[in-house]
Parts: sequence; structure tokens; C-alpha cells
Amino acid sequence: MRTYRTEIKWSVLGFTATGVVLLGPPAWLGAGKAPQAREGTVAPKFAEIPLKQITIEDKFWSPRLEINRTKTLDHVYQELEATGCIRNFDIAAKKITGTFGGPWWADSDVYKWIEGASYVLGSPPDSELERKVDDLIAKIADAQQPDGYLNTHVQIEEPDLRFRNLAFFHEDFSSGHLFEAAVAHYEATGKRSLLEVAIKLADCFDRTFGPGKRDGLSGHEGIELAWVRLYRATGDERYLKLAEFYLNERGKKPSVFENEYNNLPADRTVLWRQGVPIKVRALQEHFYIRPLGDHFFLAHPTAFDTSYAQDNLPVRDQSVAVGHAVRAMFLYSGMADVAYETGDSRLIGALGRLHDSVTLRRMYVTGGIGPSSKNEGFTDDYDLPNDNAYQETCASAGMVLWNYRMFKLTGDGRYVDLLEQSLYNAVLAGVSLEGNTFCYATPLACDTKFKRQPWFEVPCCPTTAARFFPSIGRYVYIQSADGLWVNLYIAGQASATLANGQKVSLKQTTDYPWEGRVKLQVEAESPQEFRLHLRLPGWASDAIIALNGKKISPPVSKGYAVINREWSPSDVLELSIPLQIEKLEANPKVLQSRGQVALRRGPLIYCLEQSDNKADLDRIALPLTANLTAHFEPTLLGGVTVITGQGRAQAPGDWTRELYRPAHAAGGADPVGIKAIPYCVWGNRGQQKMKVWLDTVPP
Amino acid sequence: MRTYRTEIKWSVLGFTATGVVLLGPPAWLGAGKAPQAREGTVAPKFAEIPLKQITIEDKFWSPRLEINRTKTLDHVYQELEATGCIRNFDIAAKKITGTFGGPWWADSDVYKWIEGASYVLGSPPDSELERKVDDLIAKIADAQQPDGYLNTHVQIEEPDLRFRNLAFFHEDFSSGHLFEAAVAHYEATGKRSLLEVAIKLADCFDRTFGPGKRDGLSGHEGIELAWVRLYRATGDERYLKLAEFYLNERGKKPSVFENEYNNLPADRTVLWRQGVPIKVRALQEHFYIRPLGDHFFLAHPTAFDTSYAQDNLPVRDQSVAVGHAVRAMFLYSGMADVAYETGDSRLIGALGRLHDSVTLRRMYVTGGIGPSSKNEGFTDDYDLPNDNAYQETCASAGMVLWNYRMFKLTGDGRYVDLLEQSLYNAVLAGVSLEGNTFCYATPLACDTKFKRQPWFEVPCCPTTAARFFPSIGRYVYIQSADGLWVNLYIAGQASATLANGQKVSLKQTTDYPWEGRVKLQVEAESPQEFRLHLRLPGWASDAIIALNGKKISPPVSKGYAVINREWSPSDVLELSIPLQIEKLEANPKVLQSRGQVALRRGPLIYCLEQSDNKADLDRIALPLTANLTAHFEPTLLGGVTVITGQGRAQAPGDWTRELYRPAHAAGGADPVGIKAIPYCVWGNRGQQKMKVWLDTVPP
Repeated sequence: MRTYRTEIKWSVLGFTATGVVLLGPPAWLGAGKAPQAREGTVAPKFAEIPLKQITIEDKFWSPRLEINRTKTLDHVYQELEATGCIRNFDIAAKKITGTFGGPWWADSDVYKWIEGASYVLGSPPDSELERKVDDLIAKIADAQQPDGYLNTHVQIEEPDLRFRNLAFFHEDFSSGHLFEAAVAHYEATGKRSLLEVAIKLADCFDRTFGPGKRDGLSGHEGIELAWVRLYRATGDERYLKLAEFYLNERGKKPSVFENEYNNLPADRTVLWRQGVPIKVRALQEHFYIRPLGDHFFLAHPTAFDTSYAQDNLPVRDQSVAVGHAVRAMFLYSGMADVAYETGDSRLIGALGRLHDSVTLRRMYVTGGIGPSSKNEGFTDDYDLPNDNAYQETCASAGMVLWNYRMFKLTGDGRYVDLLEQSLYNAVLAGVSLEGNTFCYATPLACDTKFKRQPWFEVPCCPTTAARFFPSIGRYVYIQSADGLWVNLYIAGQASATLANGQKVSLKQTTDYPWEGRVKLQVEAESPQEFRLHLRLPGWASDAIIALNGKKISPPVSKGYAVINREWSPSDVLELSIPLQIEKLEANPKVLQSRGQVALRRGPLIYCLEQSDNKADLDRIALPLTANLTAHFEPTLLGGVTVITGQGRAQAPGDWTRELYRPAHAAGGADPVGIKAIPYCVWGNRGQQKMKVWLDTVPP
Repeated sequence: MRTYRTEIKWSVLGFTATGVVLLGPPAWLGAGKAPQAREGTVAPKFAEIPLKQITIEDKFWSPRLEINRTKTLDHVYQELEATGCIRNFDIAAKKITGTFGGPWWADSDVYKWIEGASYVLGSPPDSELERKVDDLIAKIADAQQPDGYLNTHVQIEEPDLRFRNLAFFHEDFSSGHLFEAAVAHYEATGKRSLLEVAIKLADCFDRTFGPGKRDGLSGHEGIELAWVRLYRATGDERYLKLAEFYLNERGKKPSVFENEYNNLPADRTVLWRQGVPIKVRALQEHFYIRPLGDHFFLAHPTAFDTSYAQDNLPVRDQSVAVGHAVRAMFLYSGMADVAYETGDSRLIGALGRLHDSVTLRRMYVTGGIGPSSKNEGFTDDYDLPNDNAYQETCASAGMVLWNYRMFKLTGDGRYVDLLEQSLYNAVLAGVSLEGNTFCYATPLACDTKFKRQPWFEVPCCPTTAARFFPSIGRYVYIQSADGLWVNLYIAGQASATLANGQKVSLKQTTDYPWEGRVKLQVEAESPQEFRLHLRLPGWASDAIIALNGKKISPPVSKGYAVINREWSPSDVLELSIPLQIEKLEANPKVLQSRGQVALRRGPLIYCLEQSDNKADLDRIALPLTANLTAHFEPTLLGGVTVITGQGRAQAPGDWTRELYRPAHAAGGADPVGIKAIPYCVWGNRGQQKMKVWLDTVPP
């Protein structure tokens, strides 16, 4: 059995990309987008298959994507309108007058909506949505200033503070989302309307920031990976250089933000919060200080907690994942994108250490991260509370972004294992089956107080859902010079153009994650020799592969079965992954889950909800030897495979007047049936108790 | 079996002192010291037996007390001299010139030494020590200013800031220790030399602070209980009123300290720390802010963390033990002293809630408190880390002070159970068997890095040891109008004067805590009728009592067997408490000890040290059913009873590359002998691994 082992020894300089063949820029990558393989570095070797060449027709995913398309996108748009986020562009364009609406990074949420809408334009064609997108882009273009600057909050409320409070104003974060939306829209529609806005804004940044120009650093990372995306779409190397510049600015002593702080007007109130006037300088300080109880905590600038935005060390020297989790995921993803393009071995070394820090010491079993609401982020190694797990949905989605990039850097399937873990559990749990309520914080255990919300004062998670789910096709397939890779088992099709210019398509049929059988039909125009890389999940053992009905034993490398042959149009590959129910234990240093187990079947983590269980959830425990079985319930929660078996109902312990007492050998717990549902569908049946980790009892 | 159950229902107004007989001021309490029983309140009912009428001749305690007298006191005096703390008085008196030495509360450490020395003067007579004490008192008297003010730090370094930075300068804390030392010295010697200094200083406070005068609040509590002690010694009610005043000042909005802060000179540097200049105002802020990492954390005054010094709420409204643990113990002890004198039911209600907060949710099994080094204090309910337990020795001693006062308020033996738990474990572990190295922080598990230190930059713990241990006689016996109480089983004698003026003495013979047999010889001048209250420890079951060789079954009330008879000079009472080895478990909410057990025998908590155990301590676990036995080892650590039995050596778990993995039913752990020693003697054989809580494994 393979679990989450790292076979690569990470070190700052010692990264070895075994088996990677250095190739010249393949023609099929398109003009102007060729990644440059640099001497002594890791060669980029993957090319994404354009998203519109990937379709999903899947029993598990299609209903969720359809809900996202038909309901979530509408819901989010309405909320963005209602909270003034869209009107901000008209105010900034001086078409109307008014005050700024939404949080000061509201532009980013509008851009995220456009990105999500772009992914679904054309599948099926939706002229009304296309018109809505075009109208919105026109508003955005109108709001852009002649020199390219665009940030409605600053334009409306603080015009003289343009680029003067990077730590707080999210000008770069919002711009990053504009770049991403613009590329998505361009790739989906071929229209350059938003891309031109993005380029104009990017050039405004380029005139302002960079070596020999001004210092610049994003208070909320997100622009770094967007610079790389814009570079890849346009071939303009200035943008890649800006991505590197933004990475290099982090961790300076004194911090870029501290210098910036000293140039801020001290006494101007720019915001009110809970009746408290917030000065512009205090705003910036706020980002460096953990909230203290209910106080708005303002600290002396020399006490900046630079770890909040990962500004504590130069990125290449970082080893421990700290601070705000979403910021961290954007930063690490940007680092991986830059490293992919430049082969920077010190960046790759840092990424390996940070990845260990997160996945070996600071990650929930659901693949989510960031336990604390105090900093919306990381705390200490092995501190993973379940009851009040913060596990922000945006951070979970960030784990998918980052692990995808780590896979691209290394070709190692273990990163896709982690991507799958976050995707099928933490991310998916973030949105209801109805598609119009969300988790911002997503606990791993709750009482009856927890409830999904339709919107939040900080609405990043709904807009993340809107843009994230329609893009999951990119995680299913990818191609390399030597062939095609199947990373996720999701039914549908992909068509790709091989390095030799020949077209090939893959048709995937499966009931994964409910069943482990996958059928792949390779449909090449003519017989083609290439390698098909099939991911064998790290949690799986004894997977069987058959080609045209005959079992084969292809070589396995870094978590992939590699099948190299001349593929014929009628070839059928079948993969069978046994889905066993496993009782997982956490490293005993995770005190909050000590002596407990979580149930996993395939990629899915399970949980108990009270409505499926007669005994009080607080009393339910499981013997390690309990025999558990799985069966599909077509009418439950849209159709899910549940896990049932016999647990124990422990006697209610009365500790109200004791802190310590003589221990008695356990026993006397009554047998009780238990039923577990996938964690990704919890919280869809009203407010009730839920728990992922179950106490264990002797057999 | 009785464990730590509360039988009293605490509430703000609902405190019921069942069985308490309201008595007029008994003549034997001495003139001017009569506590006033107020209508509707709890009647004070105990009178302490003067410490010099109590002797200890005990196998367990006498060697420790002798070391304290002959070694610790000398060692502490030498360190106080070497660090300039004694010379400060000569500088303040302008006999010599120089800069202030030691921490700014250095005076308190000198006073604590005098208090400790006073307790041992005369047993045996020690003219050299007496001369040393007298010389020191003369220096102190010379340093006192004409109006009574006395604080060498302020006098030498900040004369214009007298009483202007109460939050930080510890003027009240140091004065409190002067009052305590003065009373101890007066009671031990009959000399008024230090008492006059104390009274002069007390009157200086009285002219300055109080209703209609200035606001006053101690940044480090300790003066409140000292006011009551001075009141009891002098009968001067102004001091009791000042104690109440200091309590009433706490928790005001805005804080007394916040107002004080606004009157401080902003820009004057008064101290340097780690190369950082500390401004006088920053000094005060510091006390309200938890340190952030290694930073000296200076915050905006509106963000004062008032919980640090329990200034978060008015004392009568407090329910949760917060902030700095030593401060909390002094405050709660002061509250209990005032409540004892005034019967203030709202204070008593708060004390009950705070006591529950500490002992049901925030206390180590050793009776120590305050898990965090960040604030030297309390964190969250059930957060009791073992490895990095702070458990400051002064806070452990504070638990003895507080529980003693809670006993006096209620007559309930469960408070003495807790007093004994702290005394025999957390406090005693704070000082080495050699008496010249100490724990400031006292972990419940350590690796080889931990080492006791001879002195600390903040040397409160060594001076606490010096003053605390010579006074433990006061916790052994006490008297009430109806007779005598035996609270602790420590061999020695006490002589008391009964309410009727007749003298009676008790002679106690025992090998407790190694053995549970106690012999008490009641030696009255003539046959006397009174009640003898014998504490039956809450952890004990099936204690047997015999009078003159015949088993008796006296009534038991609040943890005491009450034997009422006319005592004859030759009466012998025998008590036999079975000492069983118990495996204690913690409330499962204490995550750090979940699934583990701690060993207790009698009042002693045990621990494992590596040098007694062949298997690596990190691998040792214990089946809940393990048969354990106790035997006395006369040559080990001065003679201790050890616990031995068969444990298991678990296979070393390699979690270095995993965070979650499939759980396997335990097993395969090899049998291995284990040996445990009392926690109070750990850390006396070099640096080595130690642990209190042991993993459990199936039988």
C-alpha cells in the first residue's frame, strides 16, 4: 500500500528531476508560449490541453457542475449586484455617483465571476450569459483610467493613495484576478476585450514596479501566478519577470510594507468598522497583527507580524507554512509557476520544504488547511482542531492549485493524490448540493449551530466556487511530449494534439468515486505511438489494468502506470482500483484526533451526521476491528455510497465535576449501527451534529 | 471513592455555609483581631495556631526543610547580594552611589528572603542568621523615605514617577511582600523593627490611595492578601479597607491603568531590554499584551489585553481564570481573605466560579497551573500541554495559598486535597534535593534539554521556595471554636490553646506519604472535651480510625472525620489510609493526555525518568490492567517509594513521511519492566527524559 510518502529528497540545490527529457520548445505549444528550459534546471514538460477540448459527462461531477452553471453563477452575480460590487465600475467610470460597495477588494470577486462564466460559455452555448459577460467587460473597460490603472475602491474612495497601501488595498490581488479572468475569457471566446484591459493594466504595473523602479509587494498574494498566466497567454516576458520580482520582494528587512507604512498619511480615516474609525496606516498594520479576541488590534509598526502574509523570510529561504492560508496557497502556486518556467532550484527547494510543512504537519485529512480563525491560517505543527476547524474553502481550492503545479514541476502522482484529496473532500464540501449556500469556514465536527450561508461580508468563497468548479477539467488530463496523462477518473472526453501533430481523443467511462472501474477508449485518427500515463492513486493497492480485455502489467513510475504502444482506434483500456473502506489514524502528534479514526473509501473521506444515526454522535465510537460495508443509496443526497457497520454507543461520561479520575478499562459500550456519508455532502439536511473523526474502543 | 467533586453549589448569592455556627469573637483570638461575622454571610470560624507552636519532625519533610534552612536561604541571600538587590537599599539610602541592580521588583525578593528567614529563626536558634536579618532590616529602614515611601527601583531610577506606573513598577507587589515579611518577623521574634517600616509604608499608601483619594491598582497582585495579613497583625481596619479598595479597583472601564497610561510621559526611556529601549509608557503597555514570538510587543493602548492582570472584569463578576497565573493566585487569595473577613457573598460566588474554572478545567494533575510561557499563565479550558508545561513554581505555591484560604472560607476538606496535591507535587518539584537549583517552569514531560537553574533573571521562584517551605506548618493544623483540625499528615507536634483557655497538644507520628498509618497522641493538661477533625483525603477509600486500639466510626462531614469526646492525656488515635496505586485518566477534553494515564499513590503523582527504565521513554506504554506494586528504596533520591510493574515497549512509529495512515489494531508491543518515581523528586540525576503521562495499550 502506498500512502503519502515522498520519494524525492528535497533540498535547496539537490532537486533531481530523474527521467525528465530536456526538449526544445515543442511546436504544438503554440507560438510565443514556449517555456525556456534553462541549464541545470528542471525542464518544463507538460502542456495543458485547452479546457474547451475537455468535456465532463460524469455521474458524480456533472450534477455539481450543472448546479454551478445554472445556479451558483446566477446567485453570485445577483449578490455582487446587490452589494454594489458591479455598480462600483460605473461609479469609477463617473457614469453615476455613489459610494463604493462591498469590501475593498470587491473588484476581484467580479473578475472571479467572469472567469467562472467564461469557462461555461459555449457548453452549452448561452447567449444571455455571453451578453452579461460582455456588458460587464464593457463596464470594466470604461472604468479603467487612461494610463491603465484600474481599482474601483481606490478610484472612488482614495484616489490619491493609488499604489500607496499595497499591504492593504488589494490592488495587486484584484488585478491578478483580472488577468486570470481575461485569459480565461480570451481562451474561451477568442475575444480580446478583457485581455486588452488586462494588458493595459499590466503595463501600468510594469511602468511602476520592478527592479530600478518602485518596490512592490502584494498584501494578498494572487498576482504572482496571474503574471505567469498572462505571460503564457501573451508570450510577453515582462510579465514573467514581474512575477519573479513580486516573489523576490517578499521577506526583505525591513519589509517593503514597513517602508510603505512610513510614507502613509497617519491620521486619515479611510474606513469604519464596527463603529471604529480605521486610519489608513492602521489599515496596513492590521494585516500584520493577529486579531486579539474581539479587538481590532493595532500594533506598533516595529512589531509587524510579517508571517501573516508570508513576508517573514525571502521566499527561497522559507521552510514552514505560516500565516494566512489562502495567501500562502497563492504564493506557493506562484512560486511553482515561476519555478516551472525558470527552473529556479532554490525556489524548488523551498517549495519542497513548504509542501512537507503543509502536508506532513499542517493539513486536515480532508486535504483542507488553516485551522485557525484568528489569522485565517496556519498555527503550529500538528494543531488540527476538528470542532472549530477553519479550513477555509478558498484555502482548500488553493491546495488544488498548488498541488497541480507541484505535479507539473515533478510529474509525481503523489501531488495529484493530494489534489484529489482536497478536491473531493474539503473543496467540494464548501458548496451545498443546491449550489446557493456555502461554507467559508468548514469544520470537521460540529454541533447544531453550524449552517451554510448564501453570502458573506467577505464573499471570496462563493466567488471561488463559481470560478473553480467549471475549470476542473484541467486537472483530469494533461499532455507531455511523450503522450497523454490521465490524472483524475472523471467520465467524459478529451481531445489533444500530439507532439507530432496528430489528433487523439480519450473517452473515459466510470462511476468513480463510487466504483473503481474505469474504461478508457483511445480514439486516434490513425495508429499512433505514444505513452499513456494512468495515475494509480497512492491510497490504492492491487489496481488491475487490462488492454482490450487482457490484463497487462505496465511499468509504474512516480504513481503512474506507463503504457507505451502504438494505439489503434479501437483500443480499450480498463483500470480497476479496489475501493476499500479504510480506518485512518492521524500522527499521534495531532492531539485533536488522537485515538480516533476517520473513514476513507477511495478518495472520499466520510463523516457521520446525526440524522443517519440513532445514538448521539457524541457517544458513538468504533472498534478498530469493526466490519464496515459500503452500498450506494440512489435517493440519499443525490445518490451517494454510504458506509455502514456496527459501532458502539459509549456510556455518557460525566466529567462535569472532575478533571482527573481513576481510569477503568473500557467496556460496557452498547453495540449500535452507524452510517457514514461522504464529507463532501455533509450539511445539506439542516443543522445537526457532524463528525469526521470517531473515537475508537476495544473490540 | 471520593475524587474532586464539589458538593457545594456555588452561586453569586446562593452560598450556603451549612453547619457553620455563628460565634462571637472568641477571646483566644487576641484583642483587636476579632473577625466580624456580618449578617447573612459566612462566619469566619478558624484561628491559626502560631507557627512557632508547630514543629515538624518528619521523615519526608524534615530533610527538605533542613536543606531549605541550611542551604537554600544562604544560596538565595548570596544571589541577592551578587545581583545587587541588597545593595539597592544602601543606594536608595544615599549611603553609597551606584545603579539599581536586579529586576525592578528586586525589593520583593529581599523581603521574601526575610520572611523565610524569620520562620526558621529560633528553630534551632541561629544568632548569625538573626544578625543578618537585623542588619538587612536596618538597611531597609534607612532606605525608607520620611513619608514612609519605599521602593528602591523608583527611588534610585525614577524618583519622579513614584506611584505613577502602578501597572509596571510593582510598588504594591513589593510592598505586599514587605508587609508579609514584617508580620512574619514580628510573630517570630517579637521585634517591631520591620513592622514599623511596614506600617509607615502602609500609612503612606493609605494617605495616597482609597475612595476619595487616588485610584490604585496593582499591576502584579500580592498586596491584597498582605493588607489583610497586616490588618490581622495590627487590628488596624484601614488596611482591610485598602484590601477591599484594591479589589474593587480591578475591572473598571476604562481600566485604572489606561487612565494612568495617559498621564505617563510618552517618550522617556526607562529600561533597555535586549538592546531595545523601552519607554515608560511602553513598559506599562507591555503588561497588557501577550508577547508575540520573540518580539517585545508594544500595542496601542486601546488594545490593552486587560486579562493579563485579571483587570478584565470587576472581581465579583469574574468566572474564568485568565492571564498570568501567579497574579491570579495572589488575587484570588486576596479575595478569599477579604471574603473571610467581610463575608462578602458576591466575592465568595466569584471565588467558587474561579475555583471551578481552575480545578475542573485548567489544572495539571500535579496541582500546578498556567500552561503557557507566552503569558506565564492560563490559556483555554483543557489546554494542558505536558512537554512544554510552564507550570511556574510560584503559581503552584499560589495554589496552596489559595486553597488554604478556600478551606478557611468553607471548612471543606476538598480544598485541602487540592492544597496537598499542589504541595506534594508541583511545588516540591520546583526545588532540587540539593536545595540550590530550581525550576521556574516545570514541565510534565521533557527530553534531555531540561535542567534546573541556580538563579533566574526573574528570580521569584527561588525566593518563593525560601519563604514558602518554612511556613508549611500552618497547613498541618488549625483550630476552631469547637476544637482542632488535622489537615496534613506530617509528623511533629502542635500545641494550641482551646477556646476555654486550656492548653492541648497533638503529637503526630507517621511515615506519610510513603505509608498511610498515622498515630496521633492527644496530650491535654486535663481531660478536655473538644472536637478533633481528621481529614480523610478525597482520593482515599476505606480509611480506618481507631481510638486507643479500638476501631471507631465517627461521623464524616466535608471530608473530615469528626471525633467529639472528652480527651484524656493518654488518648491515642490511629488513622490508617490505604495507599493504592491508581492509574488516573484526564477528562478526554484534555487532548494532550488523551488515552494516557498518570500514576498516583497517596498524594503523590509519579513519573518515569529514563535512568530507571531500559526502554526509551518515548516507547513505553502501560496496559490499563497492568499490575503495579510499590516498594521503598532507601538509597534512591534520599529514600523514596517507587512503583514498578510490567509495561510495554511500543514499536517505534515512523511518522516522518506520513500525517495519516490506515490504523491497525494495536499489538506486538514487547513486555518491558517500568519503574516510576515521585514527580516531586524528578530532575535530580542529570538531564534525561521524563514523563508523567503514559500511553496506554490493550492488555
